[in-house]
Amino acid sequence: MLAVMLRCEAEIGELLRQIVDIESVSGHEQALADQVFQALAVHPHLRLARFGNVVVARTDFGRPERVVVAGHLDTVPVMGNLPSRLTEVDGATFLVGRGTVDMKAGVAVQLNLAATLTDASRDLTWIFYDNEEVEAVKNGLGHLALARPDLMRADLAILMEPSGAQVEAGCQGTLRVVVRTHGVAAHSARAWLGHNAIHDMAGALAVLAAHSAQEVLVDGLPYREGLNAVGISGGVAGNVVPDACELSVNYRFAPDKTVAQAEQLVRQVFAGYDLVVEDAAPAAAPGLGSPIVASFVQAVGRPVRPKYGWTDVARFAELGIPALNFGPGEPDLAHTVGERVRLDQVRDCRDLLARWLTAPAG
Amino acid sequence: MLAVMLRCEAEIGELLRQIVDIESVSGHEQALADQVFQALAVHPHLRLARFGNVVVARTDFGRPERVVVAGHLDTVPVMGNLPSRLTEVDGATFLVGRGTVDMKAGVAVQLNLAATLTDASRDLTWIFYDNEEVEAVKNGLGHLALARPDLMRADLAILMEPSGAQVEAGCQGTLRVVVRTHGVAAHSARAWLGHNAIHDMAGALAVLAAHSAQEVLVDGLPYREGLNAVGISGGVAGNVVPDACELSVNYRFAPDKTVAQAEQLVRQVFAGYDLVVEDAAPAAAPGLGSPIVASFVQAVGRPVRPKYGWTDVARFAELGIPALNFGPGEPDLAHTVGERVRLDQVRDCRDLLARWLTAPAG
Repeated sequence: MLAVMLRCEAEIGELLRQIVDIESVSGHEQALADQVFQALAVHPHLRLARFGNVVVARTDFGRPERVVVAGHLDTVPVMGNLPSRLTEVDGATFLVGRGTVDMKAGVAVQLNLAATLTDASRDLTWIFYDNEEVEAVKNGLGHLALARPDLMRADLAILMEPSGAQVEAGCQGTLRVVVRTHGVAAHSARAWLGHNAIHDMAGALAVLAAHSAQEVLVDGLPYREGLNAVGISGGVAGNVVPDACELSVNYRFAPDKTVAQAEQLVRQVFAGYDLVVEDAAPAAAPGLGSPIVASFVQAVGRPVRPKYGWTDVARFAELGIPALNFGPGEPDLAHTVGERVRLDQVRDCRDLLARWLTAPAG
Repeated sequence: MLAVMLRCEAEIGELLRQIVDIESVSGHEQALADQVFQALAVHPHLRLARFGNVVVARTDFGRPERVVVAGHLDTVPVMGNLPSRLTEVDGATFLVGRGTVDMKAGVAVQLNLAATLTDASRDLTWIFYDNEEVEAVKNGLGHLALARPDLMRADLAILMEPSGAQVEAGCQGTLRVVVRTHGVAAHSARAWLGHNAIHDMAGALAVLAAHSAQEVLVDGLPYREGLNAVGISGGVAGNVVPDACELSVNYRFAPDKTVAQAEQLVRQVFAGYDLVVEDAAPAAAPGLGSPIVASFVQAVGRPVRPKYGWTDVARFAELGIPALNFGPGEPDLAHTVGERVRLDQVRDCRDLLARWLTAPAG
């Protein structure tokens, strides 16, 4: 099969369709990564690097500021929603198919601008990475942050996650802990010989049920927190007093806290319980006080929202780089069978980003 | 292979060994049931009936009272503990192997007495049945109670479950219910869009943790009750507010209550919760007030204990027949790899039962 090479300079809807139709479910990004690399390699204003299925393209215009624009190549599994198709709704054209929203529309904008912005008021680093939709340990951007943090350095990072073409600033942190109770097994007909570990979980559930989530203002944005049981299990058989019960709790915390502070808070909530941290990821501050962020927000000209949910912006925040979510596509449609993006909005994002990247800096 | 026919009149230890070495894990009782049937068929004082692997042998001595002696032929799975072997501990001889305690020692006593008691002061019904160690729906005695309750009719039923050669009177009832909570799923980063079903279980667990089990005196015997969570489950993924949680609760209740009363009590405890009864089995009253029970207890000459746990005595109790557990073997050794019975105790049970069954009635 002779692969069609991506045409980055094509009309953005056409480019998006090409990208969407190269299936790239997590773990199978190679074909698309190859195409991205080849399509960018022909442009002399870009210096390319590749690490597995991570592609980095950098300009060297000699500008005082640098902006990273990053997006992931992978999608969640296809559910009969490929190849893509166009549809019209109320006079607007939509591209329907897996990945249109999350986040190949963003990747199309990246590719088009990477190829066409042969000059800009800021130096640019375009990052395309793999395995965002699976376990954090596989995340390509995470691997890059460990192996080559120098390639991620910038004054601002824009992550093209779907945000309906609005700026979603920062992100919540997330901490998952397991609370365990330990009992003594016995036949339930002689329960007094045992100790019921499920009963011992009563206090932990009472604390959760009574907990009211905080809303924390950071840079004027309201980050709503949440402390939720996300799993519970215990029990051996219908006639056995259980000797163990496990409660899994997820704390989504505002960017005013570090992971350590979040853990301390959860330990206070479950004081007296056996508690183990299963995984954690830091929050990212919106960083609206930074002049370059303010400049971008002003250029977008729409209200800034806090990001609910953890995204890879936190990886930049950890490196001290202000980072925003900004991309085409309605986040509510991500991962759905009917995933679809309005082509108007993709163009809008592209134009907005192009305008800001070429406008005088500072 | 020419099967060795069981010799019911053999020394009881020898007979027991023959029975134990005919493997009869639940569902595979046919070989043993065949042997039992053939061994009893040669005795003209017995009228035999067979239903699948249930064997019933009845005398017709014309006595005013009838006693049922029942035992199950099946065992829990073999764990390298067959064929049986003899061992000496502190001068006492034990037979070691699967089923020695639960309950082939009892079956040996039944078979020996069925064959040798060619006259008695009470008419006798010997019942051997299958599938006691598995789901109640397969239980051979349960099938007989439905199909031919007339064959179970008696003034007293003795179930030869291992009780260390003491009388264990009646049994607890058991009721298992599932309590369910219903929430609304949401991403845990936007928990306020959902409703957490695990949190809603806090009240149910609090009730269980605070519950203190009653001790109920019936015929002077203390039946300890128990209300226990035996299972809990809920949760979809580490980042999802769960929309469902299930709590399984087992109520072991004293013989002063019917199943309906037990259910009513549990419904009061979990008022306001969605509750479904999963299974139930009635308790059996000790019936110590009955003259025939009193006579047997006196003949045994040892303290009567309440039975903790559900046994097939309840099937007789449902038919209005007083029923007791009385058999050789320490119940704590049942189902263990090291299952073993002291042959002295088997003889003791045999002799005690023979003496009472031949002593003048009333």
